[in-house]
Amino acid sequence: MELKLAFIGFGNVARAFARILTDRKSPFNRDFDLSWKTTAIATARHGCITSADEIELMRAVNCVESGDNLSEVGGSIPANDPTSVVQNCDADVLFETTPLNISDGGPAVTYIRTALSRGINVITANKGPVAFAYSELKELAEQHGANFRFEGVVMDGAPVFNLVEKCLPGTRVVGFAGVLNSTTNLVLTEMEKGRSFEDALVEAQRRGIAEANADHDIDGWDAAVKAVALANVLMDCDARPADVDRKGIREVTADSLVAAKASGRSVRLVSRGRREGTDVRLTVALEIVPLASTLGGVRGTSNALIIETDLMGELAIVETDPGVDQTAYALLSDLIVVHETLNRRQKH
Amino acid sequence: MELKLAFIGFGNVARAFARILTDRKSPFNRDFDLSWKTTAIATARHGCITSADEIELMRAVNCVESGDNLSEVGGSIPANDPTSVVQNCDADVLFETTPLNISDGGPAVTYIRTALSRGINVITANKGPVAFAYSELKELAEQHGANFRFEGVVMDGAPVFNLVEKCLPGTRVVGFAGVLNSTTNLVLTEMEKGRSFEDALVEAQRRGIAEANADHDIDGWDAAVKAVALANVLMDCDARPADVDRKGIREVTADSLVAAKASGRSVRLVSRGRREGTDVRLTVALEIVPLASTLGGVRGTSNALIIETDLMGELAIVETDPGVDQTAYALLSDLIVVHETLNRRQKH
Repeated sequence: MELKLAFIGFGNVARAFARILTDRKSPFNRDFDLSWKTTAIATARHGCITSADEIELMRAVNCVESGDNLSEVGGSIPANDPTSVVQNCDADVLFETTPLNISDGGPAVTYIRTALSRGINVITANKGPVAFAYSELKELAEQHGANFRFEGVVMDGAPVFNLVEKCLPGTRVVGFAGVLNSTTNLVLTEMEKGRSFEDALVEAQRRGIAEANADHDIDGWDAAVKAVALANVLMDCDARPADVDRKGIREVTADSLVAAKASGRSVRLVSRGRREGTDVRLTVALEIVPLASTLGGVRGTSNALIIETDLMGELAIVETDPGVDQTAYALLSDLIVVHETLNRRQKH
Repeated sequence: MELKLAFIGFGNVARAFARILTDRKSPFNRDFDLSWKTTAIATARHGCITSADEIELMRAVNCVESGDNLSEVGGSIPANDPTSVVQNCDADVLFETTPLNISDGGPAVTYIRTALSRGINVITANKGPVAFAYSELKELAEQHGANFRFEGVVMDGAPVFNLVEKCLPGTRVVGFAGVLNSTTNLVLTEMEKGRSFEDALVEAQRRGIAEANADHDIDGWDAAVKAVALANVLMDCDARPADVDRKGIREVTADSLVAAKASGRSVRLVSRGRREGTDVRLTVALEIVPLASTLGGVRGTSNALIIETDLMGELAIVETDPGVDQTAYALLSDLIVVHETLNRRQKH
């Protein structure tokens, strides 16, 4: 099966994914009978292109990385903007990787809504649409026979949503607790060693983990949006980021972290969800946990999520030092799931 | 779809599973369109029965738990022994939960071979067949259009084999490291607190985790068999338990554990597999790890497995304080996978 791919957003994650797609073209063709061609790429700063035939993916990567406009890629047709690309592209799968909008998830929500309405399968690594419009987008996908996948939204490519869907059938998720934001965890880990908050934050920015404006991380917004995504998908909730009882890490002191460590404990920013009657209570807050525990053992940019279920008890997934390639893998694993679904449908 | 179930072995795990099956009969019927009836049960000490109609599962559970012979269950037909049950039962799925035979995996391997040859799907929680005969049984299953599933073999119901198969498509496992034996980990954790080896072992026996003869645990055999199962399934190996470079925990002293803990470290019995050229090197040995790490954080009877992959880097799964219900869940999750496969086949 050959799938036509469209990219809305072509930043670090999408380009790392493009590299994996290119590198693994023949093994994936062999192992999954899966091949692809790129028919559209839309960016905010490097233009938008489509092609009636095929866009050479690595030429597009090189073009963007050289700071050029995508119209330089031979054989392509320039398009006006991402919206027109989403409305008109000839694609089977659309990869949406535009930046998070923390206030309402837009314009990514609109892109995805449009694509799903056209019956195009959507794979996103953007938390916004899952935190602000999950139930609507899920229903839209079902109505139009399309897939809506988003494994990369929490813990990069570590299976979280797929883990529950594919490996814990028949269980009910009753709660979760996770260290899900790399920037704050790196800051806390560095402060444990005695560094100041400011110093530790600069370190996170130097490593390219935190944005220049790291307020979303520091104030717990990123951790809150991820908690909402988990609750909406795994606990059948319809929550929004504003529903989270959210505290950030601004008030923590290096002394308190060093003291905790000296007594065999660790301070972590923990995202929690818990069923309370028919409701799900969502919190983000600093917690003191034992060093020798799943959350206490999460150092630096690593992530961990404990999932509590009825039948399988407590289970955790831990991702060590993720980079952009891990988020790119999330897109790939979603693509393989979409391909399997289409394959199965074709056979019927 | 109604599946006919046969049980070879009807110990704690099988009976816990029978309880879940009974409790969840209507939700599973509703959510998965899956129903079942029991047509055969074979035990070593409580007799063997079959039925042309249906064996009342909870009556069989109660019968065994009262120390009675299964022939007391009304409407059943006595059978000679497990072998004749496997050869003659009318079943779609056979649950094999007989005890581990550490020398060659038998007689479980023979039971499974016979069932698969008859086209019966097999689900086991027994490490032996996967450690001693995986490639043969896998091929046999394929030849006869049957499923061979064994999620419960490592880390009870925590997804390990299903995790890689279903959630990490396209990746290659290049190594693993796990704390996989509950008895030795409980002993080490108790010794860290200053208890003696003997005392700690009695504690493990009191809790029903260690057998009266705990040599298989203490000498690292259980950890070795699990390493082999992981290597055979996840790394396409054809290893045997004797191939593992294996050291147990007999020589550890309480002083060394307390000293490690005082310096922020922990001593753990770690099962490892690692590709070396075309080979996989398998080891079981005591290792000193940081307290604040995935393996260092595994306390008492908990388990953890770190899987190292090419595309997704390092990923760990941690199971907290598993009990018999978690192993029973492994059988259930395998049953749902088998049912899905059969369902899909039926539709074609």
